[in-house]
Amino acid sequence: MNFAASAPAHETLTLAADAQDLLFNEAHTAHTYTSEPVSDAQLAAIHELVKNAPTSLNSQPLRAALVRSDSARDRLVAQMAPGNRPKARQAPLVVVLATDLDFHETLARVAPHVPDARELFSDETMRHESAVVNASLQIAYFILGVRAAGLAVGPMSGFDAPAVTEEFFPGGRHRALVVANVGHPGPDAFRPRAPRLEFGEVFKTV
Amino acid sequence: MNFAASAPAHETLTLAADAQDLLFNEAHTAHTYTSEPVSDAQLAAIHELVKNAPTSLNSQPLRAALVRSDSARDRLVAQMAPGNRPKARQAPLVVVLATDLDFHETLARVAPHVPDARELFSDETMRHESAVVNASLQIAYFILGVRAAGLAVGPMSGFDAPAVTEEFFPGGRHRALVVANVGHPGPDAFRPRAPRLEFGEVFKTV
Repeated sequence: MNFAASAPAHETLTLAADAQDLLFNEAHTAHTYTSEPVSDAQLAAIHELVKNAPTSLNSQPLRAALVRSDSARDRLVAQMAPGNRPKARQAPLVVVLATDLDFHETLARVAPHVPDARELFSDETMRHESAVVNASLQIAYFILGVRAAGLAVGPMSGFDAPAVTEEFFPGGRHRALVVANVGHPGPDAFRPRAPRLEFGEVFKTV
Repeated sequence: MNFAASAPAHETLTLAADAQDLLFNEAHTAHTYTSEPVSDAQLAAIHELVKNAPTSLNSQPLRAALVRSDSARDRLVAQMAPGNRPKARQAPLVVVLATDLDFHETLARVAPHVPDARELFSDETMRHESAVVNASLQIAYFILGVRAAGLAVGPMSGFDAPAVTEEFFPGGRHRALVVANVGHPGPDAFRPRAPRLEFGEVFKTV
């Protein structure tokens, strides 16, 4: 179990060591948070940073609900798995990250370089898979963007996805994928890292 | 259409400006590549950097095939959409990024803190969705890791996914999600950025 990149690998990269540490090596999922708020200006800066990262045909299907009202918080927490409720209750900001399953309707505007882009996604099964894959790419960009803003993030998958979708993105066009706590880490915020797969377990040469 | 983060947003972030530029602002999907090779040492450094980024229950379902032999390259290019063939032919390295649909079989090892982790994913539909979401998170981490190594990346979705899966991950346990070109950008490598969605189109407050 490694807690940091080894020195030789570290030195192979172009990214500066402090940036490696901020985004990856020293960043951990937070399980407690202080009460210090997360502002819309911080979120706008995160969006501005990560918005240019790539998605298929620039489809950008991610849609997000910033849970700021007490009533929305109550409704969200009720749909979280029991183990996630205290975190979703305590974090200064909770974000519901969803995908727009009908993202193809915006392609004329965001993919003007591909005239038949909308028609490429007329098959619903294929379109929904693309919506899930590409919104997930954007969720990862968002996670790293939160860290780039000096904040901690706690992504969670343990929730009733259909119920959260219906609550925050009603109408059948979206699907909630991840709920993320965002804020400054509180006392005892971090757990030891669980084991990571080795290079040879993930990569094979063909 | 913005080509870089505006100064105020930029200054709000903790991540240093040169790192913001390397990973996001000045990074573009490359469409041509030089012949300079990409080494396994570079890939190991990328893996070492991004391996700690979060996935649900530390599931890490990403599996990748590094296409290095001429015959594997031929078989891959044949399954790419026509517009992607020249790039997949020319890039010094092409990587098939897939998910392990049966990632729950490794959870006892990578999620020892969750004793019933395997059973949480006994439902196949739910498990496959989790496999796609979490491998996609890891694909995004990999894309940014490639950029952190000073390399350009060109992720592609236009390919026959069942055929590529069968070719490089036979046996029915995996699903190919993205094929990525990796290398140093060649002449006329970059296209102008297509429009990005504004903050208010992605985020809403509830």
